[in-house]
Parts: sequence; C-alpha cells; structure tokens
Amino acid sequence: MGDAVTIALDAMGGDRAPAMVLQGAEIALQRYPGTRFLAFGAESEIAPLLAKLPRLGGAVTVHHTSETVSDDAKPSQALRSGRQSSMRLAIDAVADGRADGVVSAGNTGALMAIAKFVLKTLPGIDRPAIATYFPTRRGESVMLDLGANIECDAENLVQFALMGDAFARTVLGLVEPTVGLLNVGSEELKGNDAVREAGVRLRSGEVPIRFHGFVEGDDITAGTVDVVVTDGFTGNVALKTAEGTAKLFTESLRSAFRHSLMARLGYVFARGALKKLAARIDPRRYNGAMFLGLCGIAVKSHGSTDAFGFANAIGVAVDMKRNGFLDQIRSELQRLSPPSPQPLAQPAAL
Amino acid sequence: MGDAVTIALDAMGGDRAPAMVLQGAEIALQRYPGTRFLAFGAESEIAPLLAKLPRLGGAVTVHHTSETVSDDAKPSQALRSGRQSSMRLAIDAVADGRADGVVSAGNTGALMAIAKFVLKTLPGIDRPAIATYFPTRRGESVMLDLGANIECDAENLVQFALMGDAFARTVLGLVEPTVGLLNVGSEELKGNDAVREAGVRLRSGEVPIRFHGFVEGDDITAGTVDVVVTDGFTGNVALKTAEGTAKLFTESLRSAFRHSLMARLGYVFARGALKKLAARIDPRRYNGAMFLGLCGIAVKSHGSTDAFGFANAIGVAVDMKRNGFLDQIRSELQRLSPPSPQPLAQPAAL
Repeated sequence: MGDAVTIALDAMGGDRAPAMVLQGAEIALQRYPGTRFLAFGAESEIAPLLAKLPRLGGAVTVHHTSETVSDDAKPSQALRSGRQSSMRLAIDAVADGRADGVVSAGNTGALMAIAKFVLKTLPGIDRPAIATYFPTRRGESVMLDLGANIECDAENLVQFALMGDAFARTVLGLVEPTVGLLNVGSEELKGNDAVREAGVRLRSGEVPIRFHGFVEGDDITAGTVDVVVTDGFTGNVALKTAEGTAKLFTESLRSAFRHSLMARLGYVFARGALKKLAARIDPRRYNGAMFLGLCGIAVKSHGSTDAFGFANAIGVAVDMKRNGFLDQIRSELQRLSPPSPQPLAQPAAL
Repeated sequence: MGDAVTIALDAMGGDRAPAMVLQGAEIALQRYPGTRFLAFGAESEIAPLLAKLPRLGGAVTVHHTSETVSDDAKPSQALRSGRQSSMRLAIDAVADGRADGVVSAGNTGALMAIAKFVLKTLPGIDRPAIATYFPTRRGESVMLDLGANIECDAENLVQFALMGDAFARTVLGLVEPTVGLLNVGSEELKGNDAVREAGVRLRSGEVPIRFHGFVEGDDITAGTVDVVVTDGFTGNVALKTAEGTAKLFTESLRSAFRHSLMARLGYVFARGALKKLAARIDPRRYNGAMFLGLCGIAVKSHGSTDAFGFANAIGVAVDMKRNGFLDQIRSELQRLSPPSPQPLAQPAAL
C-alpha cells in the first residue's frame, strides 16, 4: 500500500447520509490523492450515488450492511445489539488493520463506546477524550475533552494534557506546544478539586509538557495556549457556546448589511474581504473531532454537516495517520510512565 | 425620599477607579434623574474629580475611607480585615438602610463574601448566585450562576431557577419566562448527577416555573429560553467563552475591512448599520452582574470597564430597586416554601 491511507467510512451516519458521506469522500480524494475508502452501509443507496461519482468509484470498496445505529440509541444498546451496524463494521475494519482510521457522522456516544470497546485504550490512558481544533486570534488551538467524560478527576485531566500535547506536536506540528487548564480564574486556589489538583501535578513537572497554568473562557479564542484541557461537561458547553456566539454574530452582521441601501452597497464593496473572513471562521472547516487515547484513529463528524465539512473530517483522520500520531503518542506515554510495579491490591503469594 | 433611589458606590473598586466610578455615576444621573449616591473612598482623590463633575456633586455624599480591598485579596481575608474598606462601608450602607443598593467594580470574591455576610441570604436560599443578561438572537436572556458557586448540588440549581425566574419577571418584565438547565444534551439521561436530579425536580412541577428542560451551549445565544441556569464553574466559562468569541469576531471583522481599498470603501457605506450592530453587542451594555439571593441589592461591575459601562451597572441596581425585585422574590419564595417545620437536628426539650 506504500503511503496510501485507507479510511473506513460509516456511510449511514449523519443527517444527509449516505450522499453527504460519499460526496465528502470525493472531495477528500481530490485533496489527498491515493486515499482508499471502505464504505459500510446499504448498497442499494450507495451504488446509485457512486455511479455519479466515478472518480471515487475507483477508490472505494463497498461493504453492504442494512443495520445502522440510530441517533437516539444509548451507547450501551448500540454496543450490545449493533454488531452488524455500519458504524461497528467501520470500526472493526480499523481494529483488524484493513483501515487506518474510521470517520463517522453518527451517534457520538455510540461511536465512542464502540470505538473504546473495539479499539481499546492506549496503555496508560484510562479514558479517551474528544478533541477538536478551532480558530483563535493567533491561529489555531486544540481543546479536549468535548463531552466523552462528563465527570473527570485530576488523573483524567493530566492524561488529557498529555494527549493534547502529543496531538499538537504531531498533527499541528508545534515544537513546544503550551498547555492550559480551563478554570474560572488564573490563581492557584481557583476552581474545583479536580482542576486544582491537576494544576498542582502539571506545575510539578511530573509530566514533561509546557504547562502554562490555568486559563479562562476568553483565553480559548484568544489563543493564549495551544492546548486547552477541560472536563467533557465544561468543554462541550464551551464549544457550543462559542458556536452559538459565532452564529449570533454572523446573523447580526448579515441583517446589518440588509439594513439599508447604503449598507447593501457597502457589502458589495467589502464582499471579497468578508468572504475571506467567513471562510476562516466557517465551522465546516473545523469539522472532525478526534477521539484521542485509543489504539486506532477515530474521527467524529458533526451529524448536520455537508460534504465539504465531511471532507474535512476525513482530512483529520488522514493527517493523524500521515503524521504518525499513534506512534508518537505511544512513545510519549512510554517515556512518561515507568514500567508499572505490581499492583498493591494483590495479596502476596504465601 | 419618595421614589428617589440611593446607590452606594465603592469608589475605589476597578482598574480606573475612582475616576471611572464617578464619571459613570454622572452618566447614570443623566439617565436616572433624582438618583442619590453615597461614595466611599479616598476623599483626596474623589474631591478633585467631583470638582469637574458639578452635576454629580449635588447628588453625592462622600464618605472618606483610606482602606481598600485589593484585587488579589482572598474573600476570607477581605471579610476579616477590611471592615473600613470602601467596599465594606458601601455594603454596610445598604444593610442599615441608607442606600437601596451597592455597586462595585472591585474584587468579585470579596464582594460576594462581604455582601453575603453583611446583607444575609433570603429565607429559603442557601447560596446567592451571580446573574447577568446578554444579547441573544431573539432579544435578551439571563444566565446564572456565573461564578459564585463552583460546585453546586441539585438543590442549589433549583434555587437558581427560582431566582432567575423572579428576576426575569420583575426586571425584564416577562410574564411567563421560560427556564432551561444548561447541559451537554437535551435528553433526560444526559449530564452529571446534580443536573439530572435538578432536571427531575424542575420537571415535576415542584417549583411553579415554566421549565423548558435541558439546553445546550448554543441555546444560550439562540435565546431558546429566557433564563439559563447552571453551576458557577460552567457559567463562568460559558460567559467568558462567549465574550472571547465575540472579540475574535470583532477583531477579524475589523481586519477584514482594512484588507483592501475596496473593503475600506465598503466600510464607509456600511458604517451606519455596522455601528448599530456594534452598539447592540457592546459588552459594556451588558455590564453589571447581579448578586441574587441576598437581602439587598448588590451589583458587580467588570473591573476593566469604563464610565459608560459602569453607568450601566448602576442602571441595573436602580432598575432592580424601582421594579421591586426584593419584594417580588421574597413573595415568590414565601409562596413556594411552606412554613419550615422545626429543624430535626435539634433535640426535643425534655
């Protein structure tokens, strides 16, 4: 296969699947020539779509399954009963080495549960986390966790810091990424127990990352640090709050330009610059949340995205593979954790 | 005094105090003629400023004190040792009835600790909360808590829902405000224990408010509900994330308009409409966070605001007084809580 990357697609996940998934793969193929795809889903729906996408047709192998994971399925239910689902089969393809990564726009909780069960977590990682990158005033940063872990202890947060650091090094290509812990103030005494304890541990140098200290909500988009670490509850709320604020702003701006003839005229002149701005903050551009901490590459696309957004999610998986993220994070974890001593809980043999 | 409202000012709180505080009072006085002020702070700094603000001079009484609460003082320390501080004396003026409310741009934690100690919490309220209103795609909504309570149980969240409802009724003038609980999804099983339990209680109708259910981060600015209830950690992060995103957007827009001659020309035409938009989302317009749940009106201004922003914080306190917020919330709380039984912890008299 050489350098060719193979991506397993859950062709049935997402609001506009499978059309959006396959059209997204077509766009991704233009950006990453040589990529191969395994598409899991209903052949009767996939085949006519592929007929219209001849270029993709030559790069994809379709694996038929009629089962899907519904958007309201509980993770445990999807895990138990969905063994022939398009999502599960796509993840299985990563586990047995047929694919280098999986991309799905389906049920997030189910995807995480199945990916964790099938791919397993990396040695030294208790819980995987969901990460994304996003635009900042300085460029781009990474935030995790975005909702996989609603309640986190200090150990989880320290592990997230480590994973975020490895991600920023390999995929963003940063030499010494700075890592911040999201809190309600920068002073050491601020925050809840988990955040304070994680702060003490990260400051101690126990983990060899460049720890900036605590950061606040406005530091996220300021780009104060390259990696923002938080629990899944706070991260999920922060990400969606930022998305909602961007939407409020975009809509207000659009209506401001419709406000008068003068404003409309102004828009005509400024259109080029405004379109560049719109492209930079286009949420589709940041589509593709990475599941970090697994023995395999898994990327979650927004369910409501379009082909352009889905192509970006595929791009995230391809980048992670090409940049050797898994090898990098494995070696970071090995360097950090000395061989475990025998568990203390085991009674000594008599 | 009739309808005249008297506001106690911590003249020394804030980055640009006391000038910003007094200039803000001057602006507020124009908006709310008849308002009286008690200004607590260093007379040697206040007097020359007042000499330049003759209109305010006739409406303010200065109470000299040379003590201030520093920005890095711990709340407990400010409470114990700051009895002659400008902040403490301003709050005392509310407690003993000389003022109807207090406004400070000083140390938030100290202000909350002192206000709670001096003014006491309302019967039925365990912990006061910090609330603010903010622009949404539909108008304006209220969010609480914004940082007074880092860890909250279900009972706290239920009380916040009640206080937010009373606030939206009296100060925003809404007849049947809708209340939502911030979470990572709208399904009943989502979230941590406190949020889920509060959800069950609010859905049960135990508290007579119009409970919408769970809302997510993007619902905040969408205006899905009139009142967004959350713990202080999440609320603080969400508010600051929204502020940061707005700043990213504003700066990007500004640089887009500088991008080319055409864009500059476009700005000239669209300026009127853009200025209206800027005014609507101006953070100074939403300056003034309310401490809810206290037997008295206390408003916290951003420390870095200017006179225009500080005037808005004063306006919040004046509105709360004029709209009878305290009476309203007291009667709501009485209606809701039946007369308490004797505390069980007390041993019966023998």
